[in-house]
Amino acid sequence: MGSIGGVYLFRIPEGEEFISYVTKFLEKEDIKAGVVKAVGTLRNPKIGYFLEKEKRYKINELEGTYEIASLMGNISIKDGKPFLHVHVVLGDEEGVAYGGHLIEGEVFVAEVFVMEIVGVELERKMRENGLALWDEMRL
Amino acid sequence: MGSIGGVYLFRIPEGEEFISYVTKFLEKEDIKAGVVKAVGTLRNPKIGYFLEKEKRYKINELEGTYEIASLMGNISIKDGKPFLHVHVVLGDEEGVAYGGHLIEGEVFVAEVFVMEIVGVELERKMRENGLALWDEMRL
Amino acid sequence: MGSIGGVYLFRIPEGEEFISYVTKFLEKEDIKAGVVKAVGTLRNPKIGYFLEKEKRYKINELEGTYEIASLMGNISIKDGKPFLHVHVVLGDEEGVAYGGHLIEGEVFVAEVFVMEIVGVELERKMRENGLALWDEMRL
Repeated sequence: MGSIGGVYLFRIPEGEEFISYVTKFLEKEDIKAGVVKAVGTLRNPKIGYFLEKEKRYKINELEGTYEIASLMGNISIKDGKPFLHVHVVLGDEEGVAYGGHLIEGEVFVAEVFVMEIVGVELERKMRENGLALWDEMRL
Repeated sequence: MGSIGGVYLFRIPEGEEFISYVTKFLEKEDIKAGVVKAVGTLRNPKIGYFLEKEKRYKINELEGTYEIASLMGNISIKDGKPFLHVHVVLGDEEGVAYGGHLIEGEVFVAEVFVMEIVGVELERKMRENGLALWDEMRL
Repeated sequence: MGSIGGVYLFRIPEGEEFISYVTKFLEKEDIKAGVVKAVGTLRNPKIGYFLEKEKRYKINELEGTYEIASLMGNISIKDGKPFLHVHVVLGDEEGVAYGGHLIEGEVFVAEVFVMEIVGVELERKMRENGLALWDEMRL
């Protein structure tokens, strides 16, 4: 069990890449665990679907501008640094939704919520299935 | 950096309009910054897609009843009052998903989570791109 | 108005059923109110769409493996026990999104965030519309 640390609500400048900008923020603030949410609009986002047999992500490249209908993820440690794992739902001009693992996306608008969790230790390690994951919590 | 203020979990009465009801709640509780989430079901929701060149939202009007598959947003100040910015993913009877900026929707069921953030000041001001946005946070 | 209690971030073991595993966790930790989020991947998820006239869920059974593009829900009391109400957005191999009420899904990967809320009492009771709901909050 952890508790809440710092809480942040901010807007990413237009033109920045979402994942790298938030990761830079986490490094600057030294946030090692937490959750992230955002709303806004992304340009040319790439979303991943994990191919279990091939142990790699298939990348779906969406062209154009999409509403961030939902964006949520978590923060933990990988290779000694803060690592952001984000999933996203994107809406196109007709309102049709696409979803998956957010690989990258250029920000038109991104209003980001970051909530630090202190008192927990979560480290990603490469597993046999090809994903870098925390230890399982067994009940 | 802010910290957590009041935390609320409640159900909106059937028949109310989602955005206006939650905004009324924020005004009553004097909540100036925070985040919002919800699950439930909306009738005849209208979702927006921002047309960058035209500097206005295209409105997609969905007819009928939709599951709120995801709803997230933030609270800040606009024109001196609490302002709610919400994005949504909606699922139809076949499970097909639609997503965008929530303009309005009549509540059948809405279970709403509001978490106040204190110690931050976020004010929306009209920008050249046609959107009312906070100042950017530059790293 | 409530306040934050315990905060948890953990990974569910592969092969477990999502809803039952998190419910078991809530019972173990005696969490009576709160919110839940997750990202990851589910196998053969079943999502519900509430048929208002028939007062029952239509179940859409999705075959195969889906990214959890979004998962959010809340915790309250039903029949004296912690009860989890979760909605989900799922992305397929092409990135197409599906959404609704999560009935069940087998975990391939699930990284779960649980935040307890203390100081509120929320109990689900069966209503005339066929759903087990909290009392409405009237402004």
